[in-house]
Amino acid sequence: MTPPEARDGATRTADTLATLRTEGIDAWVATASPDGMPHLVPLSLLWSEEKAVIALPASSLTARNLTATGRARLGVGPTRDVVLLDVVLDRAVDVGDDEVLADVYAAQTGWDPRGSAGYVYLVLRPTRVQAWREGNEIAGRTLMRDGVWVH
Amino acid sequence: MTPPEARDGATRTADTLATLRTEGIDAWVATASPDGMPHLVPLSLLWSEEKAVIALPASSLTARNLTATGRARLGVGPTRDVVLLDVVLDRAVDVGDDEVLADVYAAQTGWDPRGSAGYVYLVLRPTRVQAWREGNEIAGRTLMRDGVWVH
Repeated sequence: MTPPEARDGATRTADTLATLRTEGIDAWVATASPDGMPHLVPLSLLWSEEKAVIALPASSLTARNLTATGRARLGVGPTRDVVLLDVVLDRAVDVGDDEVLADVYAAQTGWDPRGSAGYVYLVLRPTRVQAWREGNEIAGRTLMRDGVWVH
Repeated sequence: MTPPEARDGATRTADTLATLRTEGIDAWVATASPDGMPHLVPLSLLWSEEKAVIALPASSLTARNLTATGRARLGVGPTRDVVLLDVVLDRAVDVGDDEVLADVYAAQTGWDPRGSAGYVYLVLRPTRVQAWREGNEIAGRTLMRDGVWVH
């Protein structure tokens, strides 16, 4: 099967932003314990103001890993049309403490964690964004580097 | 939207094995460096003899992390019908060194890394397997524990 023609950087960036803004989209959230034990779960994703936001119990392994290391890597989309984000933890917000964030999160994800005891929003700032479909898009896959969009 | 009725354990295990045996399926492969930096990439997956097999450059970050820590966590399927496997590295096999494994890998994944210089198969033994669709399947999500199927 011949893969589709490789997209240029500007197209890939536009496609990536459209994917991240999709209502009801999920991300695979990879984290690690400080001693190198990997963890991975799918979670609802909000993309807002150039940041990724997830909501989860503060006691969950993902939240504890993120608080300990400050790092995660997110995978979005089907495996043959992926967006990958390396992120750092910007801030943790109790679900009752930011009405605007909570409203935006509920509107985009279709799920409102307010009222779920012990849940927090983790606001994640991307440092690197990559996107590719097939092998012919591995070259040029980095769309953001050191927090700055390349295109 | 009402989620589908929660499946019982035996059904979930059968569905999980069917998913893992799907031709041409990919896995999200989460690994970590020994000091807790998470990594995540999608890779073709072979499920054979109760093990997961991936093929990748020995020099890749995923291979180096797996060799260093011996651990990965794999996510398979769409995010609302997931299979998650915690795995340990069983062995690394140069792509030229095991004809049977190479033939089975190529047949299931539709891709043959023989001839790709520096590629290895990493054979991964699951220690825990989980599967769920929606929130009503979080209870009972563990299908294998300590390497033994629960159902």
